[in-house]
Amino acid sequence: MKKVDIAKKILSENDKHAFENVMFLGQHKKLCLNMISSPGSGKTTILTRTITDLKSKIRVGVIEGDIQTDIDAERISRTKAPVIQINTNGACHLSAVQVSAALKKLPVQDLDLIIIENVGNLVCPSDFDLGEHGKIVVLSAAEGDDKPIKYPGIFAKAKALLINKIDLLEGGLLDFDIERATTDARRLNKDIKIFSVSARNGEGMNAWYDWLAESIKAL
Amino acid sequence: MKKVDIAKKILSENDKHAFENVMFLGQHKKLCLNMISSPGSGKTTILTRTITDLKSKIRVGVIEGDIQTDIDAERISRTKAPVIQINTNGACHLSAVQVSAALKKLPVQDLDLIIIENVGNLVCPSDFDLGEHGKIVVLSAAEGDDKPIKYPGIFAKAKALLINKIDLLEGGLLDFDIERATTDARRLNKDIKIFSVSARNGEGMNAWYDWLAESIKAL
Repeated sequence: MKKVDIAKKILSENDKHAFENVMFLGQHKKLCLNMISSPGSGKTTILTRTITDLKSKIRVGVIEGDIQTDIDAERISRTKAPVIQINTNGACHLSAVQVSAALKKLPVQDLDLIIIENVGNLVCPSDFDLGEHGKIVVLSAAEGDDKPIKYPGIFAKAKALLINKIDLLEGGLLDFDIERATTDARRLNKDIKIFSVSARNGEGMNAWYDWLAESIKAL
Repeated sequence: MKKVDIAKKILSENDKHAFENVMFLGQHKKLCLNMISSPGSGKTTILTRTITDLKSKIRVGVIEGDIQTDIDAERISRTKAPVIQINTNGACHLSAVQVSAALKKLPVQDLDLIIIENVGNLVCPSDFDLGEHGKIVVLSAAEGDDKPIKYPGIFAKAKALLINKIDLLEGGLLDFDIERATTDARRLNKDIKIFSVSARNGEGMNAWYDWLAESIKAL
């Protein structure tokens, strides 16, 4: 089957660069997380609040992946955190070679944590290893509680799941059942850490911050 | 460049089957629309309400694209509309050959309109022509008003944009500016029809129904 061979070739080329990134991060002893979600789940808002709230404790650098525009990198740079924008120009995911170049532009020595914000896409980015230590999946409560079983790939692989926009649940306008999403995610991945948060009002963010601090320490 | 050649090859194979679908739909004189959005924008809810509300006027058949599960096809079949499920088993978009097989299973003669619900992904499906008459993009207000400029591909190609979940705007918990999303979408695509709707409470759906009826008549 030709298509399978081609896919393997692209992946193994990517894996070569992913391994370079693993080596680079290991050498510098820096934690790197790859944040993946649908468009509009609130990844950038999670990042800006995390960077601001942890400013005195954890120095965060960001690699921003977008198809076009630097809107998100602009938002991150307002927090004063170092940020490198990657535009994929149509591609649906970041690749390891792009991240490799971005890592070299970040002031890695001055950081405790590097977060890659991938292109908004719940499917493709989960198949491309970037050499990160772990994937983080973000699910907005507005997307519905059936997403873990409908898009199992990323939920099966992620170290942590942030269920975001839980402030929207209060109005009673969403049918999202946190219990269902949580149970389904754990069925796919028994070790996944789950945080229910509102990046808008800060609810639940402390548990996520504690997990970040522990993960940095455990490196 | 090998990668470009490979992409071209896959696309042209797809285009061959898309052309078959164009011929099939032309022969039967049936309108076919390809609905594309992020996961959780409300495509299935839009479909179930549309089918139910138009039951006495327009007979709708559905082709359901999902990575896994038949949850959405189950929801559609409760409306009694004929529905064919396609599971892509990991692939991030429907392809024309899959749709070709599904079209042959639908009772096409008894229908006025065929809607394909693509895999939840705002990026990849827009590059794969299925032989449809037009693409419909759905954007949930909870995803944010910056999505047209951040994911321009589908907004530039779609015949219509449904801005869904506008009932969530009333609580004041979202920053979504309909004017901004609309202006940006029109800048990418001056002919795009835009409908602000709540598939949950029915607000704004009549304009969408009128457009569907006109589009069927214009075929």
